[in-house]
Amino acid sequence: MIDYTPAENLPAFILVRPQLAENVGTAARAMMNCALSDMRLVAPKADWLSERAVAASSGASEILKNAKVFDTIPQAVADLKKVYATTGRVRDMVKPVFTGQGAAADIAGLMRLNGKSGVLFGPERTGLENDEVAYADAIVEIPLNPKHCSLNLAQAVLLVGYEVFKTQIDAADERLETGNSEMANKDETEHLFMHLEQALDSAGYFKVPEKKPRMVRNMRNVLMRTRMTSQEIRTLHGIVEDLLRKYQA
Amino acid sequence: MIDYTPAENLPAFILVRPQLAENVGTAARAMMNCALSDMRLVAPKADWLSERAVAASSGASEILKNAKVFDTIPQAVADLKKVYATTGRVRDMVKPVFTGQGAAADIAGLMRLNGKSGVLFGPERTGLENDEVAYADAIVEIPLNPKHCSLNLAQAVLLVGYEVFKTQIDAADERLETGNSEMANKDETEHLFMHLEQALDSAGYFKVPEKKPRMVRNMRNVLMRTRMTSQEIRTLHGIVEDLLRKYQA
Repeated sequence: MIDYTPAENLPAFILVRPQLAENVGTAARAMMNCALSDMRLVAPKADWLSERAVAASSGASEILKNAKVFDTIPQAVADLKKVYATTGRVRDMVKPVFTGQGAAADIAGLMRLNGKSGVLFGPERTGLENDEVAYADAIVEIPLNPKHCSLNLAQAVLLVGYEVFKTQIDAADERLETGNSEMANKDETEHLFMHLEQALDSAGYFKVPEKKPRMVRNMRNVLMRTRMTSQEIRTLHGIVEDLLRKYQA
Repeated sequence: MIDYTPAENLPAFILVRPQLAENVGTAARAMMNCALSDMRLVAPKADWLSERAVAASSGASEILKNAKVFDTIPQAVADLKKVYATTGRVRDMVKPVFTGQGAAADIAGLMRLNGKSGVLFGPERTGLENDEVAYADAIVEIPLNPKHCSLNLAQAVLLVGYEVFKTQIDAADERLETGNSEMANKDETEHLFMHLEQALDSAGYFKVPEKKPRMVRNMRNVLMRTRMTSQEIRTLHGIVEDLLRKYQA
């Protein structure tokens, strides 16, 4: 489970001329997945409060209800410090271009200075027009297969939102989930190993004495890679004990 | 445009018991967006070659046609070196847990050693069962809003695929798109500034001589932040020239 406290000044996601209610709904769901709530709509063709939109939002109807509606982009971005335009293809235009990750880092940097930003998403199929992109400080170009980079609206919202969300949490790239137990200390692993070696000794497993040191080392290497919990160590002690008893019987 | 050459040993994406044809189609599309093509299906309920699936794949029908079908997870992963299971909630189970980014780095590390891996995605709604997760070496837990982290199948495929794709490219977090021109050299910016200063001088803009150095410095700061192209510099020279002519007339 991720430890997350919603920050202030999270970016607004601004859907420009969205055409289909369902897409506004799935975009709202994607925003909710990324803990974003400030949805703005510019000249929407879609009815963002329709049944279709609410059903598609899968529980993100609050975001739809609170969406602010504007006639033009300048009105929608008036209170923001910086605006990013998502577009698949950068046209003949002079503009900084961020990856999704780069834009998220920029947005997070602005948030640390108490600055709120916004991200423009164009209409389905056509995308943003050049004159609309011109209102933005920078472009966001999500790195994807250059041969097939077209995304639907909700997916574009999800990828940018996901990158923003990642800047707001502190999640280790890898951790060991140990359930109800905890990682064993080194001495627990070593005791298990000694128990196993003893059992193998009394079973006559080490037939050639010169080979024993190497065999022991290899087995210790296997055991060291397993990263066992205390509970797992106890279970393996039980298995060794049980096998030993059967052999000795 | 991203420079991308498809690598070998890209991971297989394995859909376990997918229920709806449309979801297999949109998952194929998401794989195509991320330049992945090895789709595997375990005991699919959905007809992955149906019209619905093909339509939903938006051009990724090749991935559907080439999908390999298996009865069980062990069969589907037999040729792989490492298997990751995507799941929203990690159950009482001892297992390494990666973020999407962490898993992608791990997958890419294995690729560099010529090792092919696979990622398991569970059925819609229910997700993978505990006994299915147990076949995996590690869990992938995509960091999302803990209150609303449920994703549909295609979105889960997209987020993991996107992270894998990012490991395969070398994209600067920020670059300046300059269209048909290129970034101006410093002397071009400086000449424009001198031109502007001259024009303001002859227009009598610097009324208080003591204030001029500071005003000049402030204007230079504004100009330096613009990161202009050679073409833009030429355009601004023209504007200054034109204003100057009108003033002098």
